[in-house]
Amino acid sequence: MPAPASFSNYIDTHADAFIKRLGDAVAIQSISSDARRRQDVIVMGNWLNGQLNELGVETKLVDLGTHEMQGQTLQLPPAIIGRLGSDPAKKTVLIYGHYDVQPALKSDGWKTDPFTLVVDEDSGRLIGRGSTDDKGPILGWLNVLEAHKNLGIAMPVNVRFCFEGMEENGSEGLDECIQEEVKKGKDGWFDGVDCVCISDNYWLNTRTPALTYGLRGIAYFNIKITGPGQDLHSGLFGRTVHEPMTDLIKLMSRLVDHNGDILIPGIDDMVPPHDEEELKLYQKMDYTIDDIEEAAGGKVALSSEKTTVLMGRMRQPSLSLHGIEGAFSAVGAKTVIPAKVGGKFSIRLVPPQTPEKIIPLVNACLEAEFAKFNSKNKMEIEYLHGGKPWVADVRHWNFEAAKKAIEAVYKKTPDYTREGGSIPVTLTFAESLGVNVLLLPMGRADDGAHSTNEKLDRSNFIEGVSGLIRKTSMIIYGPIIDEGPRYLLVRGWRCCMTQVTEEEALQLLYLVNLRRIWLPSHGITAAILGVMKVSAKCADFRSFAFVYNFLDLVNAPALPTMR
Amino acid sequence: MPAPASFSNYIDTHADAFIKRLGDAVAIQSISSDARRRQDVIVMGNWLNGQLNELGVETKLVDLGTHEMQGQTLQLPPAIIGRLGSDPAKKTVLIYGHYDVQPALKSDGWKTDPFTLVVDEDSGRLIGRGSTDDKGPILGWLNVLEAHKNLGIAMPVNVRFCFEGMEENGSEGLDECIQEEVKKGKDGWFDGVDCVCISDNYWLNTRTPALTYGLRGIAYFNIKITGPGQDLHSGLFGRTVHEPMTDLIKLMSRLVDHNGDILIPGIDDMVPPHDEEELKLYQKMDYTIDDIEEAAGGKVALSSEKTTVLMGRMRQPSLSLHGIEGAFSAVGAKTVIPAKVGGKFSIRLVPPQTPEKIIPLVNACLEAEFAKFNSKNKMEIEYLHGGKPWVADVRHWNFEAAKKAIEAVYKKTPDYTREGGSIPVTLTFAESLGVNVLLLPMGRADDGAHSTNEKLDRSNFIEGVSGLIRKTSMIIYGPIIDEGPRYLLVRGWRCCMTQVTEEEALQLLYLVNLRRIWLPSHGITAAILGVMKVSAKCADFRSFAFVYNFLDLVNAPALPTMR
Repeated sequence: MPAPASFSNYIDTHADAFIKRLGDAVAIQSISSDARRRQDVIVMGNWLNGQLNELGVETKLVDLGTHEMQGQTLQLPPAIIGRLGSDPAKKTVLIYGHYDVQPALKSDGWKTDPFTLVVDEDSGRLIGRGSTDDKGPILGWLNVLEAHKNLGIAMPVNVRFCFEGMEENGSEGLDECIQEEVKKGKDGWFDGVDCVCISDNYWLNTRTPALTYGLRGIAYFNIKITGPGQDLHSGLFGRTVHEPMTDLIKLMSRLVDHNGDILIPGIDDMVPPHDEEELKLYQKMDYTIDDIEEAAGGKVALSSEKTTVLMGRMRQPSLSLHGIEGAFSAVGAKTVIPAKVGGKFSIRLVPPQTPEKIIPLVNACLEAEFAKFNSKNKMEIEYLHGGKPWVADVRHWNFEAAKKAIEAVYKKTPDYTREGGSIPVTLTFAESLGVNVLLLPMGRADDGAHSTNEKLDRSNFIEGVSGLIRKTSMIIYGPIIDEGPRYLLVRGWRCCMTQVTEEEALQLLYLVNLRRIWLPSHGITAAILGVMKVSAKCADFRSFAFVYNFLDLVNAPALPTMR
Repeated sequence: MPAPASFSNYIDTHADAFIKRLGDAVAIQSISSDARRRQDVIVMGNWLNGQLNELGVETKLVDLGTHEMQGQTLQLPPAIIGRLGSDPAKKTVLIYGHYDVQPALKSDGWKTDPFTLVVDEDSGRLIGRGSTDDKGPILGWLNVLEAHKNLGIAMPVNVRFCFEGMEENGSEGLDECIQEEVKKGKDGWFDGVDCVCISDNYWLNTRTPALTYGLRGIAYFNIKITGPGQDLHSGLFGRTVHEPMTDLIKLMSRLVDHNGDILIPGIDDMVPPHDEEELKLYQKMDYTIDDIEEAAGGKVALSSEKTTVLMGRMRQPSLSLHGIEGAFSAVGAKTVIPAKVGGKFSIRLVPPQTPEKIIPLVNACLEAEFAKFNSKNKMEIEYLHGGKPWVADVRHWNFEAAKKAIEAVYKKTPDYTREGGSIPVTLTFAESLGVNVLLLPMGRADDGAHSTNEKLDRSNFIEGVSGLIRKTSMIIYGPIIDEGPRYLLVRGWRCCMTQVTEEEALQLLYLVNLRRIWLPSHGITAAILGVMKVSAKCADFRSFAFVYNFLDLVNAPALPTMR
């Protein structure tokens, strides 16, 4: 159901009011990482809760307890869980956002007061801390609710909300909160959620809207080398002892090559190569080498081929050497042989990689290299933290609805992007709810989310609201789920799922038993790893994707075998 | 002339008074690196000056000006230049020491108040800041003067003093002060100095006195790699840009091998190999692998062969990787791609290496390695500071006198050692005065000079005074210099000199023209590189060394050519 024209009029006549409300939100200094501002974060939570209630959303504030920070025991700001509508004929969409912000001081280099929203009429920028990360996107949804309410038009979907106030400070307590809510089943507020929509990232550039369907995971390590009992003088001990730094630097040099290739055996190999269709996806993206070099602030792109650079960020793992703990790191010249050093590095992961699969490879590589040194120092490999990668199926109606909404508003097809970093809550929703999650960025690549002079372009804010309205209206055009059992096609390394009928499943099983196969579809290469029976209330994109795939498959003249 | 027995009696009966005077010195908190203690350093200088005057030494306090430290403009403590005796029939010895100390707080881990000298009767230790570094050795010389004065025995040598109060804080102003005094020639107080004696280092162990004849030089570098305009997020930029840390770690890994070998072409090769005689010098040293591992606080010696480890420290260059500036160095896990990093390393140098010779090799190696990376980052090699190595001829009468003194007091032959570190003033004296410099350590290897619970063993302090008395009395047994021109035999990579007659020089020149030759003598391998005419007032050890060498040379059946 396309959104009625009355929405456009409403948005046009209320744009200034929308911006004023954003200004009210920006004015509350909800900096979660500053103990002195904790009360402001709670004030912001209450303000947001009040707005939701006024718009007819039933809410509950979840007490996440306390935590220790900056030598104080602090109350965590509440998670706000909300619901609007329980019509079984409608899909249910869960919206996530965060109402805390990064620190900001005018003296950091802001041209205007960070906590006063400034509307720059020339550039069309709304400048202020939180404008794009993430108060603007949250208020986008409030505007959608307001437009429906005041126009007397029912929301085409049921909506659930999950807003937190600690995103910029580790999302403390949120995972447990979500999991507990899900565990309550029928009694929980997340029961019946069909898809999730998160607006907490950015377009790939400043020109073309994007839909984000993947995030890299991470595994963070510390190689600890110890030997001498205390730091030594390089004059007295140089060339008499095994120096921990010599061993560490050599080990770190064996991890990644100057061209970005990961040297740890088995890690790069784990990722299946792209096929021609996937390559086209990257070729189509509205992106240039100049874009990346402008963002990096230097002419340092690893390749002059934009596809190589984009795939390096989106579909390949990466290994970065972050630094060394325990060595001399100040300015000047100190002639020390550090006794205990820790080399920090992390690997960004893509499917099918997980920290569990990566850790043994890292350990084996480092242990084999270290053994070659015959060093009397001791090596210990510490795994500091990690998270799995996430990739969603872009053919899901959640993405289809967003794509159609963007096409309607912007008259262009969105870039389908994967982010190189992590947004851990995405995986929490995907895994605990078992539904499709969509990242629908509102802001542009140059918004400066954690930087000075953070902004959200007025057009992104206002047209973004149109987009959200159209997206929600499109969702009901997604295929209605048939009742009854379904067979789930698990396509391993993409972590995505396809629902098929029993007959289709049996046909596929026959093929699977013959050989492992590629499913080329929408530029996404996937491998069928198994078929299992599931309940009906599962992500469904049969009409959009599966039949298409299946016909492709059956008609394919030659199918390459899986690596 | 052996020292009369009356000295032994004097020392025995005045030992407690000597220790009390050391206690008075320790009580003055002359910490040169703490602006709040600067006045105490000046008080200590005045106290020392008063002591010298009481003992008949004529002194002058040289104003070294001011410097900036800890945000303040501070008066530098004065250099104390002193003289006692001007008998042209006697040799003139210059004594160097410093009256400032390292910082010390009881809370650092001291068992007793650092600025109250504690005499531990059980262990025989004199515990207090400055006891061994360097107030004990300075007061050793005061005790020598006092014994002569009170016994009515004239000093067997003329003495000159140079005491400073900034050694622990960069010896600011001292080099210029010494060079200016030397420049004054006949009018300067250092005119006619025949040798220098410095007591500011330590025995190799806790058992055997040492004479130190060499110090390594140093060249300190910073490899700067820049590329991105600012620190980047490893999620967003991992595998899209040339990461400065990847380049830097790889470069640093190409500098030194895990066994201590320097990988920069041409540096290790520059050092001539030892011969059998030199090897014996190291085999004889009273030193074990346990000694080095105890000092290092861990079982991390590079070899189980003590000669290998000792030569690594004393006669080989070493390369230590100190740390990285600009990378993540704190505890925890930060997913940063640092934009500007500096890798700090230094090379300890031995003859014939100098910073000037080493810098081009370092630059060439790093530039060649970096070129292989095809990196778009920029590399800059910064030379931070350096100093030449120093090696003295142990066959000089200055060393012979010290050796005989030690044999008389301790009934054992001293270890002839080279230090792995630097004492820059040594080279300043050697180069500006052109005379032999001897490092005559008073304390032991375990004194903890810059550490907590610094101590000087009572026996080292008291027997040390006997040693100094005997040394000064032995000096006049050195060969008397003949007047008239002399020909100086310059033996290049040892930086030492032999004085010969014209006839001997001509004979040698004949040999030199035939071929480059080895001079095996006293375990020291040397190469004759040239012969030049010099004035008579030059270091002379003809009777001890040259004739012996020359006869050896003439009688040698086969002479290997110089590498």
